[in-house]
Amino acid sequence: MDDEPAAEILDATYLALCEHGYAGLTIQNIADESDRSKATIHYHYDSKEELLAALLDDLYERYADRLDAADGDTARQRLDALVDVLLADEPPLDRAFHTAVLSVTARAPHDDAMQERVTAFDRRLFETLRDVVAAGVDADEFDDRVDPAVAAERLATTIKGAQLRRFGADRSTERCRDAVDGLVEAQLRPPAVAEGARR
Amino acid sequence: MDDEPAAEILDATYLALCEHGYAGLTIQNIADESDRSKATIHYHYDSKEELLAALLDDLYERYADRLDAADGDTARQRLDALVDVLLADEPPLDRAFHTAVLSVTARAPHDDAMQERVTAFDRRLFETLRDVVAAGVDADEFDDRVDPAVAAERLATTIKGAQLRRFGADRSTERCRDAVDGLVEAQLRPPAVAEGARR
Repeated sequence: MDDEPAAEILDATYLALCEHGYAGLTIQNIADESDRSKATIHYHYDSKEELLAALLDDLYERYADRLDAADGDTARQRLDALVDVLLADEPPLDRAFHTAVLSVTARAPHDDAMQERVTAFDRRLFETLRDVVAAGVDADEFDDRVDPAVAAERLATTIKGAQLRRFGADRSTERCRDAVDGLVEAQLRPPAVAEGARR
Repeated sequence: MDDEPAAEILDATYLALCEHGYAGLTIQNIADESDRSKATIHYHYDSKEELLAALLDDLYERYADRLDAADGDTARQRLDALVDVLLADEPPLDRAFHTAVLSVTARAPHDDAMQERVTAFDRRLFETLRDVVAAGVDADEFDDRVDPAVAAERLATTIKGAQLRRFGADRSTERCRDAVDGLVEAQLRPPAVAEGARR
């Protein structure tokens, strides 16, 4: 977006979403996060729906950037780095980001346009996980009987649950991380070590 | 609650939450779901916070009732029945119920009193899962090296993720169910059949 005030309003909307959650998102809260007035916000975005659509596009970019930032020399290292990024809870930034995404996801069932965008977030996560699992299978790091798409579905599901419990139910990071790591072990390890990994 | 109008208002609040989600919950929406006026609602509940606290207590009872309703002759059957209940998506009732719980969970990071109650929901789920896994280990249905608390943490995490993806990201029920079933197999099956269950 070349339009500077519009971009600034979008940044303020993101900050307001992180601070107040979807239910607390008001034009006043957005104005409070920027130097712009409510009137200026209304001038740049005709409706709250239009602003929200722009916000979700912006949030998607931030989400994709976070996923892409997870790197490593091996597939297993990349997978661990991805899980680190997805379960990072350093306040205020990580926690605010993940609660913002959760807030939008939980709102999606009530709003078709929103659900379409949230489904794109989900697909991006799935594809990223599938690609790293496939690379690990190709490199003989993971069991070659693993189906990358099946493993990625299961990983995505457990990771989303870990985020929901971590940030919603205030479950400890360690417990949520263990659930994800346990699944990674159970799904991807070569069968020879599978048994020993149980308690 | 002996107070009939108050109970009726609570039922209407539940219906409004299912219909509109937390962000769309207004006294007007609650009035629309009942025969009571906004003034009557304000008379019975001093503040929106008080009404919300009563709603969460009510939702907790409904949640506990759903978990308790899952039954079966064996631990494995009880576990499958629990997963059925937790991932049921028959519209409008199941879908509305689960999206209502998700909506409240995603709101929790922004509200300490709410987070305390959402954490109680989470603990109830964890304890129910832990008890059924422990019963299955005692009855030699599940591998006796399984730690019921560890398995229950992992199951709870994947089930919450399956709900979030099913109702938020509109992922298919089958894919989400497979993620949970895959975890049940990987965590609880006797080791002799462990390998064959992979693709």
